[in-house]
Amino acid sequence: MNQPRELASSALEELRALLGDRVSVSRGVREHHGRDESYYPYAAPDAVAYPHSTEEVRDIVNVCRRHRLAIIPYGVGTSVEGHVLAYSGGVSIDLSQMNKVLAVHVEDMDVTVQAGVTRKQLNDEIRHTGLFFPVDPGADATLGGMASTRASGTNAVRYGTMRENTLALTVVTADGRVLKTSRRSRKSAAGYDLTRLFVGSEGTLGVITEVTVRLFAIPEAMSAAVCSFKDMAGAVNTVIQTLQSGIPIARSEALCATTMKAINAYNKTNYKEQPTLWLEFHGSEHGVVEQAKLVQDIARDNGGEGFEWATKPEDRNRLWSARHQAYFAGLQLRAGSRAVSTDVCVPISRLTECIIETGKDIEKASMPIPLFGHVGDGNFHCMVLIDPESDRDLEEAKAFNARLVKRALDMEGTCTGEHGIGYGKREWLIEEHGEAVELMRTIKHAFDPENLMNPGKVLPPER
Amino acid sequence: MNQPRELASSALEELRALLGDRVSVSRGVREHHGRDESYYPYAAPDAVAYPHSTEEVRDIVNVCRRHRLAIIPYGVGTSVEGHVLAYSGGVSIDLSQMNKVLAVHVEDMDVTVQAGVTRKQLNDEIRHTGLFFPVDPGADATLGGMASTRASGTNAVRYGTMRENTLALTVVTADGRVLKTSRRSRKSAAGYDLTRLFVGSEGTLGVITEVTVRLFAIPEAMSAAVCSFKDMAGAVNTVIQTLQSGIPIARSEALCATTMKAINAYNKTNYKEQPTLWLEFHGSEHGVVEQAKLVQDIARDNGGEGFEWATKPEDRNRLWSARHQAYFAGLQLRAGSRAVSTDVCVPISRLTECIIETGKDIEKASMPIPLFGHVGDGNFHCMVLIDPESDRDLEEAKAFNARLVKRALDMEGTCTGEHGIGYGKREWLIEEHGEAVELMRTIKHAFDPENLMNPGKVLPPER
Repeated sequence: MNQPRELASSALEELRALLGDRVSVSRGVREHHGRDESYYPYAAPDAVAYPHSTEEVRDIVNVCRRHRLAIIPYGVGTSVEGHVLAYSGGVSIDLSQMNKVLAVHVEDMDVTVQAGVTRKQLNDEIRHTGLFFPVDPGADATLGGMASTRASGTNAVRYGTMRENTLALTVVTADGRVLKTSRRSRKSAAGYDLTRLFVGSEGTLGVITEVTVRLFAIPEAMSAAVCSFKDMAGAVNTVIQTLQSGIPIARSEALCATTMKAINAYNKTNYKEQPTLWLEFHGSEHGVVEQAKLVQDIARDNGGEGFEWATKPEDRNRLWSARHQAYFAGLQLRAGSRAVSTDVCVPISRLTECIIETGKDIEKASMPIPLFGHVGDGNFHCMVLIDPESDRDLEEAKAFNARLVKRALDMEGTCTGEHGIGYGKREWLIEEHGEAVELMRTIKHAFDPENLMNPGKVLPPER
Repeated sequence: MNQPRELASSALEELRALLGDRVSVSRGVREHHGRDESYYPYAAPDAVAYPHSTEEVRDIVNVCRRHRLAIIPYGVGTSVEGHVLAYSGGVSIDLSQMNKVLAVHVEDMDVTVQAGVTRKQLNDEIRHTGLFFPVDPGADATLGGMASTRASGTNAVRYGTMRENTLALTVVTADGRVLKTSRRSRKSAAGYDLTRLFVGSEGTLGVITEVTVRLFAIPEAMSAAVCSFKDMAGAVNTVIQTLQSGIPIARSEALCATTMKAINAYNKTNYKEQPTLWLEFHGSEHGVVEQAKLVQDIARDNGGEGFEWATKPEDRNRLWSARHQAYFAGLQLRAGSRAVSTDVCVPISRLTECIIETGKDIEKASMPIPLFGHVGDGNFHCMVLIDPESDRDLEEAKAFNARLVKRALDMEGTCTGEHGIGYGKREWLIEEHGEAVELMRTIKHAFDPENLMNPGKVLPPER
């Protein structure tokens, strides 16, 4: 891959003519845009542009195409597979100033936002409507970034992922076209599903500038619970049996004993340091009580003990904020460490087996590896805590992840449930999809013949 | 477009070598495969092939490519926009003998079937598992056909359409590759969403040979109700307010007075011949009672009267079978008539207005036009009952549909909620999607450069 280069001065002049001081080549800004939450070596773009509108994005794309500069969409940099790293240099399009909620349609339960709106901002701005946007990957990511990586999170088992919740996108393509992928009706059978094609394409097919997503009524009642188990199998089996009973559980997170220890240390809480299930129920007052009772029975049959309830909003928020901080809590288990995150997802019938086998692998590791995940959809994460200075640690983490991905693929699963392929998992794409990757290449070549759209991401280099 | 031609004898020999007597050039068989439920002039293929496996489909596709013959996938011929008409001749691939349920994964709540399995067959074969497949377009269509047209139906507001419920497909592409679009995990962020790209592509990008779909737990309790209203606005507003309250209604069908009259005549029932809502609730015993009570209150506020309940399975089945027969019942309103079906879908905030405006247009029509639909997702149908011999009737129907589509597009809706584009709605695709159609063409050219895959469908001719 190319080393970052000086930006051609004519390209920079054209960008400045468009954006004035909303284009930067300062070292600090470029470096900031050349890294994400992954451990991959950072790679700064040649310039960073801050558009305010779809039209400005289109104009930036046109400048880049004329000068053959790579185009890298950037939200808030919370990706974990090197999605925003500028290994071919080029222009990072930072969409964070495109942060307007454009249209809330309360009756239709949808909202259109600029791509730089974050999920927390969105939920703050629409709270008065009685509606909320449920997709919650933990990080306060932008809607554009979440659509690009097909994000999901703790709520997905009930409300779906970005795949199910994105109704329409405005996209700037490599040839500088501005397209709307769909209209605003809830469903349509009119032509190819461009919306779903751009969702999860990680900036390699175009730049998402606006996003229309579904909203949901804030449930009449919500209730969260914590329950601990002797082993992970009990926790996971509880979730599987709950889903099979048709109980519409809203969230179900399993956390290993190591994760619970980290959470206690980080939050000064005193949860039992055992495999634990965190659950949430949404519905009517009656419905929530009924669901909770049924799940308690199932948990008990699987060795669950000591249900602790949180029904007040502040208690529930405290609980989920502790869950979301599992990542930061985990990092504290080893001073100065950095996490190599894994992200497999398997059919739920194989989940218990996959977690048990992974647990055996964790026991053999030289570093702590907390494990937790959205078990309701078969997705879980391990945080391999490496010393960033140690090549041996990194090799060990890579080998651990390779075994885990192989295990998941052998169980008809995927190498990534929600993080995406980015830079880091490209070779796994072939293991997972085989010849279908050639069809993905066909799409990429057709949409972006000069390979300017986030080059080097998603598709592995051709051999 | 080409007229149907004699099949080159060498191509026929190659097909016979592959399939023996499972290839037919008899006039009757070809004519049968040259029509669907639409009013478009029939167009027979040159031959009909009946494969038993994905490999046989691949071999047929390879023969067709060598001889440059059009390839038209055929399920049971229930499409309504001319999807299976062979205007360029070629080979109709009838998948009805690929009718095996290949693998039921009860714990994962999914099933893999050959493309020729119909939805009723599937539900019969899995009944013992306690699971069911909810997508129900009325007709007993094949799963392959339903995936191809992105079908939905009465249950979509609760369970989603084929877009949400298809987990993976096996597809034979124009170049004779056999691909699996996805693995079996519930979610994945690995690469472009090929599954969703093939769902709704109507055979123009490849032949779907196997389908993996989600299943759901048969609800503990189900209850259906019929409620009549003074006007359609009351019925539609009841549904809108129900959804906004977050009540997880399973089905909500609105039927106009003309449709109710047709249903009564056809089924010898005595429903009130007024605008009517047919509802269904799924959940726990308590949940269903609670939902029903809330909806009754909402209905009453909107002028609804006389809730009639059906809780026994046989009563519910009778009710929904009457709803599904609305099409055939409607045809009886005018002896010897044929229906031109419309299929718009609008954001739900515009639905009442759209239905009222359409009602005014119906009043001016020279023929009966029953109106009914899945109002929960903004989708409704009109059946324009034409005399098949009358050009004037056909022109009137086309003009009515054109006004309806225009009205829906002006309200940010779509020209087709669930029927698909097929042959009949290609020009509307441009009205609806504008420049995005060029991106769809890019995909079509990339996947099928020789335009052999169901040519003349979805994409309008280039000018």
